[in-house]
Parts: sequence; C-alpha cells; structure tokens
Amino acid sequence: MELKIIKIGGNVIENETALEAFITDFAAVKGPKILVHGGGKLATQLAEKIGIETTMVEGRRITDAETLKVITMVYGGFANKNIVAKLQGNGCNAIGLSGADGNAIQAIKRPVKTIDYGYVGDVTGISEQTIDALLKSGLTPVFCAITHDGNGQLFNTNADTIAATIAVGMSNIYNTALYYCFEKNGVMKDINNEDSVIEHINTENYPTLLAEKIVTEGMIPKLYNAFEALKQNVKKVCIGNTKMIVENSQQKHTTITL
Amino acid sequence: MELKIIKIGGNVIENETALEAFITDFAAVKGPKILVHGGGKLATQLAEKIGIETTMVEGRRITDAETLKVITMVYGGFANKNIVAKLQGNGCNAIGLSGADGNAIQAIKRPVKTIDYGYVGDVTGISEQTIDALLKSGLTPVFCAITHDGNGQLFNTNADTIAATIAVGMSNIYNTALYYCFEKNGVMKDINNEDSVIEHINTENYPTLLAEKIVTEGMIPKLYNAFEALKQNVKKVCIGNTKMIVENSQQKHTTITL
Repeated sequence: MELKIIKIGGNVIENETALEAFITDFAAVKGPKILVHGGGKLATQLAEKIGIETTMVEGRRITDAETLKVITMVYGGFANKNIVAKLQGNGCNAIGLSGADGNAIQAIKRPVKTIDYGYVGDVTGISEQTIDALLKSGLTPVFCAITHDGNGQLFNTNADTIAATIAVGMSNIYNTALYYCFEKNGVMKDINNEDSVIEHINTENYPTLLAEKIVTEGMIPKLYNAFEALKQNVKKVCIGNTKMIVENSQQKHTTITL
Repeated sequence: MELKIIKIGGNVIENETALEAFITDFAAVKGPKILVHGGGKLATQLAEKIGIETTMVEGRRITDAETLKVITMVYGGFANKNIVAKLQGNGCNAIGLSGADGNAIQAIKRPVKTIDYGYVGDVTGISEQTIDALLKSGLTPVFCAITHDGNGQLFNTNADTIAATIAVGMSNIYNTALYYCFEKNGVMKDINNEDSVIEHINTENYPTLLAEKIVTEGMIPKLYNAFEALKQNVKKVCIGNTKMIVENSQQKHTTITL
C-alpha cells in the first residue's frame, strides 16, 4: 500500500485562505497519509512581540531557550492544533504530534563546528511501529517540526528533513511517496516562467540539469535530499504547489525518481 | 484492569521543581494511565506580555479569539510538549493530545445565559476506542485542557471536567480510578491543619460533612464532580497532593466512593 508523506511550508501556514484550501485537499487524499508542517514567520512574529530577538545565521534560526519556547508554542501548539481541528472539521481523523510524542522522531543536538545553532536537532531515527499503529487505528499523523533527544530536551528541526526521514523510515512497511509542497509549481527550466516545470527528474537527466545551471542554488539541497530519500527506498519524491496532491490533478509538478 | 486518570493543576505546572518530582512519580506509576493537565498562570503571563487583557468572571476566564490562541500555544504547545518530552526522558512513552487530536474529546460552545464565556467548551463526549487504541499500543496519553467541536473550532475547557469525562467514558472498557492532584493533602476537617485529612468520603458521611460545613465552598463543586463520576461507573476518586499516586505511598489523601 502507498503511504503519502506531504510537507507544507510557511507559505501555506501563514495564509489563512491557502491553508483552508490545502486542508480541504489534504482531507480528500485517499489512503494512509502523514502531514508535516513548518511554522513560517509566525514564530518570528511572536518572538518579536514578546521581545525575543531572532538570530539567523546562513538562513537558519539560532534556537536559544527562549526561542525554543516560542517555537514549541507556535509550531507545536497554535499551528499544529489548528491544523488538526480544521482537518477534523473536514472528516479527516488527524492526530497532532511532535517528535517527542510516542517517541516518534529522535534527534541529537546539532554538533557545534563553527556555529552553535542552539536547540536544533539532527534527526537520528523514527519509531515506525508507533507511527504505523496510529495509521492502522485510522489516524492521520500531523507532525510539527519539533524533535527530542529522549532525555527531556525538545529541538527545533528542519521540516523538510523530518518529512524525508519519516518517508525513509516508513518505507520499511509501505511504498512511500514524499510530496514537498512549496510556492512554485516545481523545478523550472526558467525561474520566471511557471509553465516551464520540468516534469521528470532522475539520475539520468539530473547531471545535465546541474551542468546547465537549470537547477539553481536553493533547489540543490532539496534535490539532494530527494535523491537521498530515493536511495533509501522512497519510491518517488514530488515537488510542486499544494494542488499536486489532488487526485487526478492536472497541476504540473516535478516528479523525482532514481 | 485498572486505568488511572491523573489530573494535575497549575500549582504543579508552574513550579519546575514540583513538575520534575511529579514527572518522576507519574512515570513510575504501573499499568495503563492518562494524564490531564491545566496550564495555570502561564497563559495569563504570556497574554500580559503580548498585551492581551485577561477577563475573569466568577473565577472563569473569558476566552476571546486572542486568548484562545494564547491558550492553544501555552497549554497545547509549551506545557504539553515539555511534559511529554520529560516523561519520555523518564521512560514513559507519552503522547500529548488536545481533544481535537484523534477527535478524542468533543465539546460544544458553552451556551450563553447571562455570560458569554467565548471559546469555552462544555464536553459532550470522548472517543474511548481511539484512546484505548493508544493505550493498547503502549502509549500514555497526556491531555491538555483543550477540546473541539468537530467543525474546526478549538475550545478552552476545564481540566477537572475533562479528567472526569475521560474517567467516565473509559469505564466502559476499564475499571477507572480518578486522581485529582492539588495543593492540599485532601479534603480536610480543619483547613489550617494539613494532618486533618478526611480519608474516606462516601454517600453516607457526605451529607453530615456538608451540614457541619466541614466541606467548604471551593470543595463542593469538586466533590459534586466526584460523585457524578462515581455514579457513572468510575470506581473511586482520590483528592490530594501528587505524592498520593506513588505506589505504597503513606501520603494521606481523601478517597471518595459511593
């Protein structure tokens, strides 16, 4: 059986209309499924309101104790519980989780090389049996991007990585498909033309896309993660906007396979 | 089999030392168990920080949209996820939930009589099969005091009531025992003497305690709830400080039976 792991980012979470539309589409997705969400700017906004400065280094948030508290409140509380309540309102029996819940996602504090990211976790594993028990009970897990170390410490964690790790882990039990929803229609030949979606990327055409600089900076780590997931038994990775998850959707998107 | 439903209040949540001690004791409790927690003053403190006024009427918070957001962040996020992470650190496979998660606790908006409490829910039912599926998977549910209406709306809800409703609902499957942990050692003959705990209250001696005004104002609704739970098949209700949950504890407390 196919298990879909669908990740949405800040662009969906932050925009009420976009979120409502996504919730309807996600609830209608057939078969077992897992949602992973980031929290976008909401955490930064709350941090500002209560006077906590957000420090970013190389695009990554430095998570001190106060920032972690804000993240736990905003991602683990506000965003997660509202998504779950809205899914319930659409007939999807969702259950909101952090990585600490059911020991679902384990992590270690990111080792300090040149930068100490603070309470940022690097994922080490998932509890696929527990996640599967939830799925088999008819529940749809909804994960926020928070993990734990098993010793009482929560971590801020990259949502893309969490989604990929869940897909890889669950591929021991299911055929897994990983969907990265973002603000673009997919990987595009021409970044200014939303119709120029490259529909298929695989290990054969990828080197050419790289060499011709069609795959640009920001997309390289996403595709790196995609190929890593595929090498670890994920069947396919799709990148595009949220409409690609709708059954029989004509929405163009990029499908990545080995 | 006995299922223990243990409720802790603000006095435990707000105090880091008290919380750590409770976590150790709770993790060591044998057999299936469920934790229900309030959030105490933490929500009020955050509301103040971000400039939301807290309106209390007759000891109850009026929950407007902004206050509900704060409650969802603080109870559903910060308090719930930290308790879960700490329990995991003590070898207890906890899973944090609101009433929306798994549709575990349904409620309706409290009807407006003279006061509109805003987004406050009166509990209408629980999903005992879903909660039991979690217990049977070896998980320990940890509930914050948030419910939902099944149509996407979250509600602030009294934690005592949630604990009682869970105990009543789960008594279809288990022998249930309900533990209300609070700052006193139990129901006391003399409120100024912590040694004067009344160890047993039942339908026989309760009218006398009421008539002699030994059971005082704040305790009357607690005991009313306790007797209502007992009438609906909960086997016993215990009121006292958190140490009463420790196996073979010598901690005096009040046990209420029919």
